[in-house]
Amino acid sequence: MTTSPYDILFEPVKIGPKTTRNRFYQVPHCTGMGHRYPQAEAAHRGVKAEGGWGVVSTQETEIHPSSDLTPANEGRLWDDGDIPALQLMAEAVQAHGSLAAIQLAHNGHHATGRYSRQPTLAPSSTPSDWGDPWQARGMDKADIKAFRGWHVDAAKRAKRAGFDIIYVYAGHDMTLLMHFLLARHNRRSDEYGGSFENRLRLFREVLADTRDAVGDSCAIAVRLAVDELMGEAGLRHEVEGRDIIEALAEEPDLWDVNISDWSNDSQTSRFAKEGYQEPYTAFVKSVTTKPVVGVGRYTSPDTMVRLVKSGHLDLIGAARPSIADPFLPNKIREGRLEEIRECIGCNICVSGDNLMMPMRCTQNPTVGEEWRRGWHPEVITGDKIASERFLIVGGGPAGMEAARGLVQAGHEVVLAEASDAWGGRVAIESALPGLAEWGRVRDWRLWQLQQKDAADLYLQSRLSSSDILEYGIGQVVLATGASWRMDGVGRTHRLPVAAFGALPVLSPESAMQGGLEQDDGTGPIVIYDDDGFYLGSVLAELAVQTGREVVFVTPEAVVAPWTENTLEQTRIQARLIQLGVTIIPLHEVAEGDGSTLELACVYSDARRQIPCATLVPLTSRVPNDALWSNLKEHEADWDAAGVTAVTRIGDCYCPSTIAAAVHAGHEFARTVTGAQIDPPRRGERVDLSPER
Amino acid sequence: MTTSPYDILFEPVKIGPKTTRNRFYQVPHCTGMGHRYPQAEAAHRGVKAEGGWGVVSTQETEIHPSSDLTPANEGRLWDDGDIPALQLMAEAVQAHGSLAAIQLAHNGHHATGRYSRQPTLAPSSTPSDWGDPWQARGMDKADIKAFRGWHVDAAKRAKRAGFDIIYVYAGHDMTLLMHFLLARHNRRSDEYGGSFENRLRLFREVLADTRDAVGDSCAIAVRLAVDELMGEAGLRHEVEGRDIIEALAEEPDLWDVNISDWSNDSQTSRFAKEGYQEPYTAFVKSVTTKPVVGVGRYTSPDTMVRLVKSGHLDLIGAARPSIADPFLPNKIREGRLEEIRECIGCNICVSGDNLMMPMRCTQNPTVGEEWRRGWHPEVITGDKIASERFLIVGGGPAGMEAARGLVQAGHEVVLAEASDAWGGRVAIESALPGLAEWGRVRDWRLWQLQQKDAADLYLQSRLSSSDILEYGIGQVVLATGASWRMDGVGRTHRLPVAAFGALPVLSPESAMQGGLEQDDGTGPIVIYDDDGFYLGSVLAELAVQTGREVVFVTPEAVVAPWTENTLEQTRIQARLIQLGVTIIPLHEVAEGDGSTLELACVYSDARRQIPCATLVPLTSRVPNDALWSNLKEHEADWDAAGVTAVTRIGDCYCPSTIAAAVHAGHEFARTVTGAQIDPPRRGERVDLSPER
Repeated sequence: MTTSPYDILFEPVKIGPKTTRNRFYQVPHCTGMGHRYPQAEAAHRGVKAEGGWGVVSTQETEIHPSSDLTPANEGRLWDDGDIPALQLMAEAVQAHGSLAAIQLAHNGHHATGRYSRQPTLAPSSTPSDWGDPWQARGMDKADIKAFRGWHVDAAKRAKRAGFDIIYVYAGHDMTLLMHFLLARHNRRSDEYGGSFENRLRLFREVLADTRDAVGDSCAIAVRLAVDELMGEAGLRHEVEGRDIIEALAEEPDLWDVNISDWSNDSQTSRFAKEGYQEPYTAFVKSVTTKPVVGVGRYTSPDTMVRLVKSGHLDLIGAARPSIADPFLPNKIREGRLEEIRECIGCNICVSGDNLMMPMRCTQNPTVGEEWRRGWHPEVITGDKIASERFLIVGGGPAGMEAARGLVQAGHEVVLAEASDAWGGRVAIESALPGLAEWGRVRDWRLWQLQQKDAADLYLQSRLSSSDILEYGIGQVVLATGASWRMDGVGRTHRLPVAAFGALPVLSPESAMQGGLEQDDGTGPIVIYDDDGFYLGSVLAELAVQTGREVVFVTPEAVVAPWTENTLEQTRIQARLIQLGVTIIPLHEVAEGDGSTLELACVYSDARRQIPCATLVPLTSRVPNDALWSNLKEHEADWDAAGVTAVTRIGDCYCPSTIAAAVHAGHEFARTVTGAQIDPPRRGERVDLSPER
Repeated sequence: MTTSPYDILFEPVKIGPKTTRNRFYQVPHCTGMGHRYPQAEAAHRGVKAEGGWGVVSTQETEIHPSSDLTPANEGRLWDDGDIPALQLMAEAVQAHGSLAAIQLAHNGHHATGRYSRQPTLAPSSTPSDWGDPWQARGMDKADIKAFRGWHVDAAKRAKRAGFDIIYVYAGHDMTLLMHFLLARHNRRSDEYGGSFENRLRLFREVLADTRDAVGDSCAIAVRLAVDELMGEAGLRHEVEGRDIIEALAEEPDLWDVNISDWSNDSQTSRFAKEGYQEPYTAFVKSVTTKPVVGVGRYTSPDTMVRLVKSGHLDLIGAARPSIADPFLPNKIREGRLEEIRECIGCNICVSGDNLMMPMRCTQNPTVGEEWRRGWHPEVITGDKIASERFLIVGGGPAGMEAARGLVQAGHEVVLAEASDAWGGRVAIESALPGLAEWGRVRDWRLWQLQQKDAADLYLQSRLSSSDILEYGIGQVVLATGASWRMDGVGRTHRLPVAAFGALPVLSPESAMQGGLEQDDGTGPIVIYDDDGFYLGSVLAELAVQTGREVVFVTPEAVVAPWTENTLEQTRIQARLIQLGVTIIPLHEVAEGDGSTLELACVYSDARRQIPCATLVPLTSRVPNDALWSNLKEHEADWDAAGVTAVTRIGDCYCPSTIAAAVHAGHEFARTVTGAQIDPPRRGERVDLSPER
């Protein structure tokens, strides 16, 4: 056997009574599937085990109706009737030789109780995290006793469902056990509140309960946040974060450590780079002999080796990297490092959970489709259509992924890009402040295509409809993208607004590509954001670099509201404030004249005027479909030219996210090759059988 | 037979090939159940048929994956596999002799596509209504043809599911057919856009398609918004609203008319009174011979008779009144008018759909529990415990409903209220601006109790623990409510804030009960709202009446964000602006000194100082549990006193909504009488059988 520098990552690790085959550990993470889509959930987790993750965990799993998280699609283990769905998942993981872990959760005042209608629970009476007008009940001793019983019941059910590792979860400021630990939530005066030891009591008890109940055959893991990035107002890794682990050092079989809350734990690449949790979790192994798993959006095998060798971690935890590439471990093991599809840190996956839909991934379009459509992240097989040639027009995310998928399925492609760079909007946007890692969408696909003789790649090749017909390739795919509108049409204004024609408007495309630096305006740059996702705020950051005054106007109540779903909103608005951007929320564009912009309050229509030397409007986009229209006009000539089909994919068909463009390219590659002809049909429905 | 002035309401009405037995028509409305909770949905609708509603409709039912409304719990009819769940509902309605109606819907750019991952559709490319960063696709001719086919398919499936009435739905600015009608959404230049007749084309075609497909045996209803309350920017009943009905006057078998959008159609009692839609819909019967149904939160039988006799409506449409009292028709028929449980117009029901949970109702605590717990709105039967006596302490919503339910189940109750008025917080809050109808919660229960000898009612009877023990009644129920905190603890500040002790604080209870008028402060009144529901804004309205300056400070981005769920947020914030209230969003309380309040930006912690002569803080509430504590201290004496159990219900157990308090009282009455001992167990789970 040859040795590899990465062999250390494939050493088995003992976790209590269990042993994992390697150091790759998919920590618990939400998927937006859970008990609503249990078959999709099981298939998704199973693929990760197949790809080499030695441990694969569920998401947080509600142990009782008082921890009801409706409408979120998390795990559920309220009673025996919930066992079969979770058993499906455990079996899917174990079928590939991996260990299945379950994260039991009581979510305290972070639960909603919306479906169960049972009061949620907290150390002390407190409002719900969700703004709902029902408070969590301050627990009395009977409640505490009952809670301990529910946790034991859930652990026993988890064991019956076949799980190898059972979590006791105190993390993310969203679990009852963490709420008891935190002085700001725990205002009790009995033996469960006050001193550190008192606040630790319930956690210690539940850990012991769980060990007593199932520790004979299951490993007991603790998931703990060791810092909240709040300074003295919260848990700090130097103080109580450390104290907790010291106090319980040898109690669990595994420590799974991170930082809280979720927006700190799962920071995007715009705000944090690989390894951002190391300063907080580095101490853990020094105070326990038990194996330690930690996260930090690790995709680099060399970093992983360093973490193990330096004694920082025993197991490489991952959520997002395991989503972007379920086969990351196998690729390292097989020396296929260049094939790793690295997470870009965009948190589209996280948005799935927040939007209460099965998650998707910008890099891995098969996520969430493993069961419903039978998509495998590493395999595309076509059996209904013989090998063909495809001409793909447009080298953005949709076109590149379509080309890559078609070549993978055994076809030949010509990929023509009009500009002098691959990646389309990815190339442009990844050059903006904070978005560099998004370039991985392009880089991975380009590398894949460059390895294949079946792919002919042409830059600076703008094709007309007659060029396309001259090529004589049967299958033509248009992936020509979309363009931002300049007339104000968007969510707020459904019709064009005259003001946009009367003001010095700079298109977002221009602004992104040097237009702001070159702009000769001498007054404020106004970003008008009716889009609500990231781009307006990124352009504001870019505009600040010009040294001019920057004003951010939006009909929304906050900057970039949709980035609540990617856990970025607070950071984005704080950053713009820090950069000195003037923010005018709750206003839409009313009138414009030369360098004066008149805004209207969305509630009262009250007007205010602001100076505006350059207006960058982010409202909505129009598909770039001129080429499509030209081709349709010459449809009579297709046959003679040998063109059998012209298909639009991605933004030129329907403007959407980069993730959707990649998905559209992938879907085309599978659909046209016969791997799947129909739109998704398989669905998960409620059981109507009378005995239920 | 004696005749009644209400007999006209019980005349049959012919609707195409069907005949409804009376004029009570439950128009389509959301329930938060739908395809996620199909058994709960069917039982809920069935109870309405039992209660006398001659027609009972589904909620909007997605006809195709491109109209996916995930995560909302609406109806779903994507394919044949969705038929059984809807058939359950139709059968539950027809079992009582009523007609079952289904509202087919394609939601255009109001759909989400979150689960299906299919592009949503629109007359012209446009952003999603939901802020999601994927646009709806501007439909081409092939899309239009496909859509027509899907609608036909859905109509045929609806017929197979057994529905009597099938809707073509163009309402609420949330359906594709309405989007085509509206010039602001329809920017097409082909025969489906531009002129009125062109914008009407698709609607006309789909109506004809539906008639051709199923009109032989099913009635075809149209649901149409005739006004949008937007003036010239939208549909107006005098102009195009009327033109549409004139153009298609005799095409459907029924016209179901209302105003758009949903926040206009379902206005709360704070903003609109019974019959508020009449000015907009009165014309409809003058331009069609077909039966017309309309809504206006009608609960008065005399108004209903007037509407029919005056030729305004043929059928009395209702959504909310049918939720608050499913037996409203039967009660009118049987001359039990005083027993009608009138809707209070609070839109807690609506919040259920918006929160993606089975709805609840402030007046009718059995809503959503008809299947899960087997609760019938008119029947409470206990069989496990013999008739007992109960002492209920507290005459608020929980105590009154518990008393009412217990008496209904055959028990005797003593109900003692400390103050000189019944209703608890309902009495206080219903005296505030706009909330008068909320008094119906008290009025209906008080009337019911006053009819029963088994209920002894005492006002001005504040009971101590020794009083209670002296009573010697076995079952003691505490319903003593909750009080607003004065120390700042709430969602934003989890620990007490010193500033609240250093400022002239007036409690919300005092403010509500004359304290604002009596307050001798001479500077601004500051409402600090960390609660986010209605009360802060209502107190601001009350404060304005003092003539003093009013400042509304909130850590939230808008006033009363939770009232988005009751469709009131826009109206509330607009009203406060109109009243001259200064609104300071996104700020929390930092420091306080005498008459100066220092606020901190929630993003940057930047400080600003404002004058504050009176501070009314709405943060969170504490249970009034002193009596409980006293009784627990004397638990050793219970036995000798004949007290067997002491139970807390409502806000004194866990502060929540009025709806939750009523529910808690009701649940107690059922649980203690043996009608249901356990917490809800029956759940709807996904079918895991392999063939699916």
